[in-house]
Amino acid sequence: MSTNTWTRRHILSLMDFSATEYNTVLQTAAGFQKVLSGRTKKVPALQGRVVANMFFEPSTRTRSSFELAAKRLSADILNFSPGNSSLTKGETILDTAKTYLAMGADIMVIRHKEAGVPQAIANEMDRLNSGVRILNAGDGLHQHPSQALLDLFTLTSLLDRDNPRMELLQGKKIAIVGDILHSRVARSNIYSLTTAGAEVHLAAPPTLLPKEFLKLIDKENQDKLFVHWELDPALEGADFVMALRLQKERMTANFIPSLREYHNLFGITRDRLKICQSDVKIMHPGPTNRGVEITSDLMDDPDLSLISQQVTSGVSTRMALLYLIGISDS
Amino acid sequence: MSTNTWTRRHILSLMDFSATEYNTVLQTAAGFQKVLSGRTKKVPALQGRVVANMFFEPSTRTRSSFELAAKRLSADILNFSPGNSSLTKGETILDTAKTYLAMGADIMVIRHKEAGVPQAIANEMDRLNSGVRILNAGDGLHQHPSQALLDLFTLTSLLDRDNPRMELLQGKKIAIVGDILHSRVARSNIYSLTTAGAEVHLAAPPTLLPKEFLKLIDKENQDKLFVHWELDPALEGADFVMALRLQKERMTANFIPSLREYHNLFGITRDRLKICQSDVKIMHPGPTNRGVEITSDLMDDPDLSLISQQVTSGVSTRMALLYLIGISDS
Amino acid sequence: MSTNTWTRRHILSLMDFSATEYNTVLQTAAGFQKVLSGRTKKVPALQGRVVANMFFEPSTRTRSSFELAAKRLSADILNFSPGNSSLTKGETILDTAKTYLAMGADIMVIRHKEAGVPQAIANEMDRLNSGVRILNAGDGLHQHPSQALLDLFTLTSLLDRDNPRMELLQGKKIAIVGDILHSRVARSNIYSLTTAGAEVHLAAPPTLLPKEFLKLIDKENQDKLFVHWELDPALEGADFVMALRLQKERMTANFIPSLREYHNLFGITRDRLKICQSDVKIMHPGPTNRGVEITSDLMDDPDLSLISQQVTSGVSTRMALLYLIGISDS
Repeated sequence: MSTNTWTRRHILSLMDFSATEYNTVLQTAAGFQKVLSGRTKKVPALQGRVVANMFFEPSTRTRSSFELAAKRLSADILNFSPGNSSLTKGETILDTAKTYLAMGADIMVIRHKEAGVPQAIANEMDRLNSGVRILNAGDGLHQHPSQALLDLFTLTSLLDRDNPRMELLQGKKIAIVGDILHSRVARSNIYSLTTAGAEVHLAAPPTLLPKEFLKLIDKENQDKLFVHWELDPALEGADFVMALRLQKERMTANFIPSLREYHNLFGITRDRLKICQSDVKIMHPGPTNRGVEITSDLMDDPDLSLISQQVTSGVSTRMALLYLIGISDS
Repeated sequence: MSTNTWTRRHILSLMDFSATEYNTVLQTAAGFQKVLSGRTKKVPALQGRVVANMFFEPSTRTRSSFELAAKRLSADILNFSPGNSSLTKGETILDTAKTYLAMGADIMVIRHKEAGVPQAIANEMDRLNSGVRILNAGDGLHQHPSQALLDLFTLTSLLDRDNPRMELLQGKKIAIVGDILHSRVARSNIYSLTTAGAEVHLAAPPTLLPKEFLKLIDKENQDKLFVHWELDPALEGADFVMALRLQKERMTANFIPSLREYHNLFGITRDRLKICQSDVKIMHPGPTNRGVEITSDLMDDPDLSLISQQVTSGVSTRMALLYLIGISDS
Repeated sequence: MSTNTWTRRHILSLMDFSATEYNTVLQTAAGFQKVLSGRTKKVPALQGRVVANMFFEPSTRTRSSFELAAKRLSADILNFSPGNSSLTKGETILDTAKTYLAMGADIMVIRHKEAGVPQAIANEMDRLNSGVRILNAGDGLHQHPSQALLDLFTLTSLLDRDNPRMELLQGKKIAIVGDILHSRVARSNIYSLTTAGAEVHLAAPPTLLPKEFLKLIDKENQDKLFVHWELDPALEGADFVMALRLQKERMTANFIPSLREYHNLFGITRDRLKICQSDVKIMHPGPTNRGVEITSDLMDDPDLSLISQQVTSGVSTRMALLYLIGISDS
């Protein structure tokens, strides 16, 4: 499938993404990665198009990544900051979106603390036949598709820089460790990684990974998904380890006994990695609590950590997403 | 009058706008509307020029609209955010303006909660022979000229898309309903609409439209201006109904008995519109309190509501204003 | 030395700046000043490069100046606002910097309330062989090199507009008046002005200029540096007077008895300037407390005040700095 057969208008969730779509994203991102390594670094693909960055939940990292991606594509960017917005004046979120539509926004990148908001805006935009594209930049505990796609690009382009593709992850063992329950990153990654044929091993304390969790996941991929309440079975023979961020609010809400206890049981250390594959790599969506999810020295070890590559992949992957939905005619 | 005969340096108030000037704005906005409907959407008219967006009073909607208009004209934009500014360090507003002047600002778009601030800055800029242009983006209860001009463009381009002009509103009946007393939008619209020869009917409770109000308006247009303390006489036979935003601070300050009472007496509903012209259209400057100034279903009815068109007109009208003052040699 | 021999990768402090480097900055700034006076006002020098404006301490004036400078050089800009940032999520400053590095930032402009932060980030960027350039936009009480360089450009281009250079300040007497102790502006200016061969006379109350202050300054320039606890000896025969900003927090912390008392003893007035050279000029880094450090009428007198020129010089000088570090191959 080449980019001109891309038909998806919005990117809201990875739940129904096909392997072909994943591969198109990976190949497009690889192309943009080459552009970014070159001298020019910009392409005129979205010139004259307006990307509205609507971050109802504060974010610097993801917002900056999308902003830079849009600038590299030569789009005009409108930054929406909820603090000063009409929302405080009683306007609904759909009205805010309709205002940006009427101003001429072509793509809306939406983050909201409640699950489903990007979908609701997409439905309204479609109902109005607006042609606007919606990109979910993280909605509540639901999905964070661009994060999982940049993780996928990081993994596959490590394995084959010039031709990253889903097949490369077939049979790989990937451990996802930490606050699975509250993680939209984990949820999105579960879809993409199992679709690629990887074995995904989740590891967390029972409070952060309740028995019922698997019921929340689509059945189709269950045979590639494993749950552990201890770290070692997840790490054993793992090719990749993804540590998740432990949100401060969980730390103080009795989900874990203490940070030290959590680190002792589920923190990633050089010692614990000995049971993984010898060329194991570590990932983290950031920002990291150094010494909690992962030790400081591992995080900074370029032979082990893919954290910087994840951030770099973020720009090229988001360029790919904005480009694919921005130029499609559907 | 073509654009090259435009001589106004600042746009501060519509009080002394001539019909010729209104028509130049309308024609220029119509031209930019065509640009925005095309593929390119950008013109190099203000390339290298600096537009300083100085919103001392928070605003997302108007600020975004000006920002996008400036970007479509290829200007460079400086956004001033009062929260982090030198104002909190004891600097005067004129000093802030002089700092932006010295940095190279060519146009300053100014919103301030106190009436007269844009005028004061314009006076200082002229005294310094600076050549800087000032555009009032709303000052206290005084004026909001770009809002009234985008309303005018919305109305006249609805009546003749290819050739919007003042004469089209001759003899039309326009109701302005709501918090007239505190509305800079109403004040600006009263000048533009009566100059166009429309009949303007104001309707509000006496607390929001005191007897003395008319004395505040320039005498010249008084014969086209009517005041009502009930809704029906304003709506009867009306071609257009403009509902005004009810500010939260008025709601709690005894200006109205309650929101329900206000809505019962002055809220626009489908039923009440029956006494208007059959092709009546509704406007609102936004953001709307759904179910207060106007019912939700009316607001979303594309056959009745011009609210989206107003937002769209905002970008092309503000492009026209920035363009006209930005390229004039006066 | 022409621009292609520039080898400095970061601009962190003026302590070890050579006369040749100062002159290269002045000549480059003069070139950009000409660009800004022309019609185009933009150069493509940094097209495709990313300038990250990382102001951990709020600032409108300096941030806007750097932002405009970067835009005039056609760079893409990422604005970092600490309020919404990952710092509040427990990330370290170095991690934030590494995130911007991984996103593709080429130059980081850094302001922080603690001395040494820009240096620490520069060290980390060098350790990683990143090629990123760091520009200190003010760190604690330490240094504010771009301010001192724009002051230097203001002074020397006043004396020879077409060929500003260090030699022009040889033997000039420059008074720096006010809160020397807490001023990073004073510290940076002391290095640049004494290197140029000017006599620098510091004047302040003993609380704001303790005896030990001179020990903090590098020995080399001590013979051109004089300390006074009264105003008149500093003003006598002065060619230039730099008033420093009195921070509100000092006003209330017993450093001075009262604002009136301070103004009586150290405020610059027309009367007191009589003992200076007849063509004396006054400077202030802004924002000014009118009537405290300097009287209002002096500040607005274009024959005496260079305050506007300082702001204008800020854009061209910062263009020069971004350009010199941005295009150097070191």
